Amino acid sequence: MATMMEDEVFMAFTTYAAIVILKMLVMAPMTAFFRFSRGAFANEEDVALKPSEERKKLLRSHPDVERVRRCHQNDLENIVPFVLIGLLYALTGPELSAALLHFRVFAGSRILHTITYIGALPQPSRALSWIVGVLVTFSMAYRVLSKVLVL
Amino acid sequence: MATMMEDEVFMAFTTYAAIVILKMLVMAPMTAFFRFSRGAFANEEDVALKPSEERKKLLRSHPDVERVRRCHQNDLENIVPFVLIGLLYALTGPELSAALLHFRVFAGSRILHTITYIGALPQPSRALSWIVGVLVTFSMAYRVLSKVLVL
Amino acid sequence: MATMMEDEVFMAFTTYAAIVILKMLVMAPMTAFFRFSRGAFANEEDVALKPSEERKKLLRSHPDVERVRRCHQNDLENIVPFVLIGLLYALTGPELSAALLHFRVFAGSRILHTITYIGALPQPSRALSWIVGVLVTFSMAYRVLSKVLVL
Repeated sequence: MATMMEDEVFMAFTTYAAIVILKMLVMAPMTAFFRFSRGAFANEEDVALKPSEERKKLLRSHPDVERVRRCHQNDLENIVPFVLIGLLYALTGPELSAALLHFRVFAGSRILHTITYIGALPQPSRALSWIVGVLVTFSMAYRVLSKVLVL
Repeated sequence: MATMMEDEVFMAFTTYAAIVILKMLVMAPMTAFFRFSRGAFANEEDVALKPSEERKKLLRSHPDVERVRRCHQNDLENIVPFVLIGLLYALTGPELSAALLHFRVFAGSRILHTITYIGALPQPSRALSWIVGVLVTFSMAYRVLSKVLVL
Repeated sequence: MATMMEDEVFMAFTTYAAIVILKMLVMAPMTAFFRFSRGAFANEEDVALKPSEERKKLLRSHPDVERVRRCHQNDLENIVPFVLIGLLYALTGPELSAALLHFRVFAGSRILHTITYIGALPQPSRALSWIVGVLVTFSMAYRVLSKVLVL
């Protein structure tokens, strides 16, 4: 058991996996913040304490809330595959320098992706930050399949 | 290989990870149940056997279906990070009692979250059950990063 | 470390996990393709280069885009649990033949699911391909819990 957490590549993977998962988890409180500040809720019980004439108006979608939710969804679609492929990649015993390059570029790309998405920065900033992360995951998957292929 | 499944902490992690993932998988049949009982479908091919005058009416969203789908989405956003961080946490060799406390509280919080969400129970029951789960995941991530940090 | 990637069951798991995750990752470019070809975007900055009278019309949902997105969501809801449960299952030391049967049937079911969903093939083709994948994941979870249960 303890041997895995003595391997430097696995420790590096663990560090960056924890960082990007924590980044993803922060999207939920951010959604809650926008729901309260914009007054846009999804469930009747969430507005039960408001005056009854206001309630119906608060059960609506708001562009800012939907933007954060799309950003969160994009994290789910990209960070979870990175962590799963990255775990297998770390177990194939890559060079530490190559592994760190993959993990750092991915973490940076996802932080930039969130900034460009929430800030609605001009394209192609968001598209580029997204595609860099995808390419890192594909590169790790290529290494995994070229080392380990049992069909 | 077999050594991991002889470690009690890893066995406890495996047990609770399987339980919460199974709980999450049950949300899909529950969505299907509400789609049929409420008559609210998303795809044309899903209503192809109905009389043609009914079809268009059945291609709609229904509040009860949307509620189950939001609950399922919340599971994806919280249970998947728990399992990923929990795996790394289990590999850092925590005390069995501390690990069991994390795993049990998380599993309990997510079962309560589903009950409060589907039952539309008054707030803050759902908010509290959600936040307890998030705090467990953050606590495990803190332990992981304090034990293993290779940037 | 290296010992895991010398275990044939774990190598088979790694292979099929990488394949189904790559399949899931392909859904994002497919969504982008449908967004461009159908002219249906979600963010204002994505249509900033279009003539201003066109912009508002392009910020809409389109049935084909929504179909790909539902397919992607179904992948998230099913492929991620398969990989997580499959990892634990591989660590319980099953027979290689039994493990390969699980992995191959799951991978096949998800490829069929995507074809039936994107192609809008008549039901119950999509329902069956979905349920086969769920049953594989439940079968692996059953093995995991029957081998390793620490509550």
